[in-house]
Order: sequence, then C-alpha cells, then structure tokens
Amino acid sequence: MKRTLIIDSIKQTGKEVTLKGWANTVRAHGKINFIDLRDRSGIIQTVCSSDMAKDVKEEDVLEIHGIVKGRPEKMVNKEIATGSVEIEVKELKIIAKSEPLPFDIKEGMKVALPTLLDHRPLTLRNENIQAIFKIKEESIKSFRKTLNDLDFTEFQAPTIVPVATEGGAEVFSVDYYEHKAFLAQSPQLYKQMMVGVFERVFTLAHAYRAEPSVTTRHIAEYISLDAEMGFIDSWVELMDTCELLLKNMFLDIEKNCKKEIKLTKSIVPKIDKIPRLKMREAQEIIFQRTKRDNRKLSDLEPEDEKEIAEWAKEEHNSELLFITHYPTKKRPFYTFPDPEDPEFTLSFDILFRGLEIVTGGQRINEYDKLVANVKKWGNKLENFELYLQAFKYGMPPEGGFALGSERIVKQIMGLENLREANLFPRDMGRVDIRLSKSEKPKDK
Amino acid sequence: MKRTLIIDSIKQTGKEVTLKGWANTVRAHGKINFIDLRDRSGIIQTVCSSDMAKDVKEEDVLEIHGIVKGRPEKMVNKEIATGSVEIEVKELKIIAKSEPLPFDIKEGMKVALPTLLDHRPLTLRNENIQAIFKIKEESIKSFRKTLNDLDFTEFQAPTIVPVATEGGAEVFSVDYYEHKAFLAQSPQLYKQMMVGVFERVFTLAHAYRAEPSVTTRHIAEYISLDAEMGFIDSWVELMDTCELLLKNMFLDIEKNCKKEIKLTKSIVPKIDKIPRLKMREAQEIIFQRTKRDNRKLSDLEPEDEKEIAEWAKEEHNSELLFITHYPTKKRPFYTFPDPEDPEFTLSFDILFRGLEIVTGGQRINEYDKLVANVKKWGNKLENFELYLQAFKYGMPPEGGFALGSERIVKQIMGLENLREANLFPRDMGRVDIRLSKSEKPKDK
Repeated sequence: MKRTLIIDSIKQTGKEVTLKGWANTVRAHGKINFIDLRDRSGIIQTVCSSDMAKDVKEEDVLEIHGIVKGRPEKMVNKEIATGSVEIEVKELKIIAKSEPLPFDIKEGMKVALPTLLDHRPLTLRNENIQAIFKIKEESIKSFRKTLNDLDFTEFQAPTIVPVATEGGAEVFSVDYYEHKAFLAQSPQLYKQMMVGVFERVFTLAHAYRAEPSVTTRHIAEYISLDAEMGFIDSWVELMDTCELLLKNMFLDIEKNCKKEIKLTKSIVPKIDKIPRLKMREAQEIIFQRTKRDNRKLSDLEPEDEKEIAEWAKEEHNSELLFITHYPTKKRPFYTFPDPEDPEFTLSFDILFRGLEIVTGGQRINEYDKLVANVKKWGNKLENFELYLQAFKYGMPPEGGFALGSERIVKQIMGLENLREANLFPRDMGRVDIRLSKSEKPKDK
Repeated sequence: MKRTLIIDSIKQTGKEVTLKGWANTVRAHGKINFIDLRDRSGIIQTVCSSDMAKDVKEEDVLEIHGIVKGRPEKMVNKEIATGSVEIEVKELKIIAKSEPLPFDIKEGMKVALPTLLDHRPLTLRNENIQAIFKIKEESIKSFRKTLNDLDFTEFQAPTIVPVATEGGAEVFSVDYYEHKAFLAQSPQLYKQMMVGVFERVFTLAHAYRAEPSVTTRHIAEYISLDAEMGFIDSWVELMDTCELLLKNMFLDIEKNCKKEIKLTKSIVPKIDKIPRLKMREAQEIIFQRTKRDNRKLSDLEPEDEKEIAEWAKEEHNSELLFITHYPTKKRPFYTFPDPEDPEFTLSFDILFRGLEIVTGGQRINEYDKLVANVKKWGNKLENFELYLQAFKYGMPPEGGFALGSERIVKQIMGLENLREANLFPRDMGRVDIRLSKSEKPKDK
C-alpha cells in the first residue's frame, strides 16, 4: 500500500491512514501491543493485537494501516513525546527485518563516543542525535540565506591543491598521478581569487587538518563556512556582516528547530551587539581578574579564552565576543596590518562560550606588498602563482571570515566533543572504522 | 566615498551616484574618454575628460562619482550591451592598479583552453565566463530547492574514505597519518546510510576520479549532485523525481539567468516527459538506423549515445532520454536486479544532447543479498562494515541518483570541454598550474 501521510502531518482523528517507518519501541501489554513507529518526521504510538505484533522487533521497517484515535485524557495531560493521538492498527506488514540491536538506541541512549561512532548508521537513528544534524543543516541554510540576500555568489572551491595552502605541517598529501598534491586546509586562496570575479562570494568548504593529536575540538575533515567580500570601506564591515550572519543563524535555528532544541535542551544565544575587544585589552582584563600574566603572549590560551568569555558574560551579558588585532607575526602572510600599529593586524576571532568559532580579517590587496610578504613568510612565489595573479590585475580592498560549522553546533547544543557534530568524523584513529596501529598501508 | 549603487540597479537619470568596479575598457576619443566600468552586476559606460582618465588602464579598480545620463537616441536604437544610460564622471579615483594584461579579456576573448586556465583569476572576469558559473550556481540552487520542497534533508558527505568506494582503480590515495586512505569516488555509500536516518537526503559532493587519460568529458575533481530516497513504492518514483528536478532546474535557469543565456547564446531545453527506453531497445533502434551491430554490448558506446539522442530528438522531440535496465554485471554490487529479468537491473542513465548527465537506480536493501553481492563482486566484507550496518538494522526499499553538475552546464551552454564548467579544474596535467612531467614529488 502507498504511504498516505508522514507522522507529523497527522491531525484528524477518525481518519484511515497508511504509515511507514521503523519500529522504535515494541512493548507487550497482555493481548495488546504498543509499537512506537518512527519516520523522518517523528514518532507515533500504534496499538495492535499481540498476534499482529508477534514477529516485530525494534528497527524492523513496517507498513501500518489503521485509524487515528485520540489518546486517553489522563495520558494527554502528561506530556507525551509521541503526541496526543495514536493509531489503532488494522493491518501490519514487515517490509524489512532488523537483526537484534547491539544496544538500546532509544531516547536515553547512553554510549561512549567510540561505540557511538562504531555504530554510526544505527546511532544516527536516535532522535537526539538526529537533532544535531537538523540544527547543523539549519545553520548552513541560514548562512546561505543571509549571504544570498546580501548579493553574495556561492561557488565550489577545489579540495585538491598544489601546495600546503597557508604553510604549516598539518596537511595531508595525495598521490596525484605522478605528483604530490595536498588536501586544502581552507578555501582561503580560492575565495580571495573569486572576489576579483564576483566581489562577494561564499562557499561550504571541506577543510582538512592533519592534527598530530586527538583533542575534543579538532577533526581531520570539517565543514568550513567561508565568505569573502570586496569593496569594503573598512574592516569593520566584515565584523558587522559576521555579526548579522550569526544573529540570523541563531534566530533561524530558534524558529525552525523548536522540536530539536527542546529535545536536546539546547540553548540558542540571543545576539544584539557582540562586544569587540583587542587581544591586548583582553589579556589585560584577564591579568586583572586572575593575576595570571599572559600579557606578552601572541595569542590567547584556551584558559584565557574561557576567562574572557566569562568576563563578556558578566560585563556585557554576551555569550559571544570579538577578539581583534592579533599580532602580525602570528597571522598568515596575507593579513592586513593595522596602519596605526603594524605589529598588529586588522583581524578578528569570535569566541562563543569560550570556544573560537570564527576567524577573519582584512587582507592585503596590493600586489607588491603581497609578493613581499610571501617571501618574508618563507614561501616560494611560484607556489602562489595563480593566487598572486588575482592581485596583479587589480583587486579592491577586501576581507572575509570562516565559521566552523561543527564548532557552532557543539556550542549551541553543549556537546562534549566536536566529533559528535560531524556525521562521519575522521581523526588520527578513525576513518569510519577504527584504524589499527599496526595496519600496513592498503593497496589501491 | 561610499558606493551608493551597483550598476544594474541604476534606473533614474539625473541622479548623482558613486560606483566602484573595474575598468573593463578604456577608449580615448580626443578630449573625451570612455571607460566601461564593470562590477558584480554588470557593465556601464562612463564618460570623462582625457585628463581624468590619463592614468587609467584596463582592470584598474576605480571609484567613480558622477551623474546618470540617458545615452543619445541613435545609440539606444542599436542594441548596446552596456545599457541605455551612461555616467558623466565628476570625480575618478584609482583604488588599485592593474599591471598590463597579457591578452584582451573583453567580450570577444578567444584564448585556447590551457591559456584560459593558466590565467584563471583573470579570465574568470570575462562576462561570458562568469555566465557559466552563474548558470552552474543557479542549477545547484534549483536542485536544493526542489529537494527541500520534497522534504529531503541536506547532509555533508566525507571525502576521505577508508576504501575505494565502488571498486575500480581510478582512485586517489591519501597519506593518512600512518595509514592509506582514499578520496571518495562518490558519496554513494554515505547517502545510502543516511536513508536509514532521514529517509530522503541529498548532498553536494566533491567526487574524485583518477582517470588515467585526458578527455574533454572527465575531470579529476567534480561536483556531484547526489540524492537518495527511501520508502519508494517502485523504482519509477526515482525517475519521476529526477525528471521533476531537471524540469525545475531548466525552468529556474531560464527564469533567473536571462542575461547569461542571451550573452552566451545558451539553449535551455524544455522538458515535458522524458522518453524512457531500455538499453536493449536502444541498441536495436541504433542497429536499425545505422546497421552498426552493438546489440550484444553491455553498455552504449559514446557514438551510440549520440545516435540514440538523435532518434529521441526526431521521434519524441526530446533532447533528453532515459536509458534503463543496464546489465547487472556492469553495474555496482548494490544495484537492484530486475525481478522479471535478473540479468538486467532497475537502473537508469539520462542522456542530454548525447551525453550522460545522470546515473541512478534502485538499490538492494536486504542485508543478506547485499552481503552475498559484496562477496560476488570480489570485495571484502570488512571494507563495508559501516555501510552494511545500515542494512542489517532495517532498511526500506530505496534508490537514488547523481547528477554531474559540470556536465549539465556543458550541455546547456554548448561548451567544448568539461573543464570550462569547473572553476579550477584538475586533471592529469594540471592542479591550478601545469604539472611538469619530470617534476619530483614535493616535500610536505
């Protein structure tokens, strides 16, 4: 039979419906059996005879034909996750069987991260886990919408690149025919080239980091939300755009992911104006508060980021905070130095509940200065041949930023590990399945 | 000064405006100079004194302040690409200089493909080239819109994978910490796993093919538009969905890319119903028409694809054509055999003007059959551990398809080479810049 409805569109009692989905739970109750049916839209309780349900196991795929009924009043007064109606089953058919589950995947599912990932196709069926990726996709949708409204053009950045994009050793190499190529650490150089073409561009990029260690906030392949804009009047425009983007993103999540937020007890922050603080000012504040003197360091330590986030919460009631003016020597060669103090740059990060979720800034758009900096940073000009062309032939003042999509979701939902916000996270020890330490390289 | 307008939003004559953009052309005419200014939205003629224009070269970045004027009547009667108004320049400022161009990048730009790609940041500024990527992004936008409307969930597929996804040698390998990993040939296995989670899913995937040869219709990294849906009543639903998708895509391009279509003389086909033909029937028709007997082959040769496309045009007035029921042994292990004739599969391709742009079909959703086929196709079960889990724990009847985004654009626009439809195409001989034959692998 054809499916007539999906679960969350069931409204009217008394109606005959055909539903399809998975047996989320199966509970025997004497001659009556309760099967909670799950489809892409939600979960509903169905009531059938023990005879009908006798072969049904959890995660079997079912076709159910029945009548929509209101649930008994006393039940409705309690809050029931599976809704105020149920299905009185007339016919039940098993479309596909499931083998016995290795563990319970329902609401309360509590498994350690390695187990969660070892059984990803199964654990992703848990409603709370699904909510992570609903919220992630909503954030991406919102990112696109805001930028499309601002007349940005989306483009697709390549991931195989000829050189390690921005220096650093944390890069994966690829056997590229008879050559070596690399996996892009970011779409940085490409989005800048595209400013010369469409002025305002953005991309959903796969970014790769061969981090030599396992932490809770790094993964080897992640989704970077990258934007870049030309003809800026000042670098402040970049921060304003970024602020608007996050504001809209949080509003859209709040509006379109009500069910997911409630289910996972996520807390979506409200943004008005995000406070903006120079790195040196932040360090001074941290010193005043903690007497820990990191005022000479060229970046904020993770514990500093947590401390200054607390300050922003206390002083500005803000869970987000711009840190600006990072030192020139710690930023990539293309970062624009502050004309008033060239030791520092027109750059910024955004901290969200103490974690860096955005990095951005103005770029050097003058060809000669860029060429000088490529050399000064110890790079070969020939490695940046294509990139430099974009500036050789006229590039307006420009800048941009990148948002870590997994990091945003992690912070909204209070996840413990960044891996939870990636469908199939890769790290030193895992590509889908665990990599054994002793494993020999596989043949092609 | 702040930019007050972008070019295509200029309507009212007599108004003072500040524009910013590139000097597309610079023409001296005695004491008067014409500078065509280009920004992200279009090109406009500006008129200034020879004194103002004396340092201006093509591709310089300009800020122009002036008055909007109607262009002389006799000019308006001719069709002028740069519109019916012009700017009488009061002030002109060069924001950034361009070095002399290696060749003319204006309208008529005719350069060979290697030169085009060697100067990609520059040649992408040509209006006709920009049109390719405007149309490409519109096709992607439309793909998303149709599927979102059908309640599909977008997801991000990983690109680093543990094994060569679907067999075959044309795969790039990655030095992954102490291991070997590979670049995904397609998001196939991941989208199927996601059917068990969200039922209907799609993704914009980076797909990698280490083709050992250079052809006009292959690139090493391309954008694949992938969709997969569960709870299908029949595999015909897949073809219907695909047909709707292409129909909407062509309508959206027609509607939203008028300027680009006109400029590049692109011909967007109109779809009503796409004819559907079994591969064996197609071979028979080709034999009848050409007396070339390829009726025993297990696939259509490129010349066959062209011939049957001509037949579809003549007999059905259709530039698109489904070819269905490819032989089981030529399709991947997961392809669903036709219950009425298991030598053939419930699979399809779509040919568009003689080129395959879509491939799809129903998949085997029964765990035991899938396990048997993995073995029969000579693969190791352990390499598909995660994938097989999705079927072990209950998977509904499902299937899907993938559209080659570059191929669609190539065919709409009549491009000669697939590379033209990719911003930064990679192949055996190029990753941004040309790879020298003798080059030694680079160090990290």
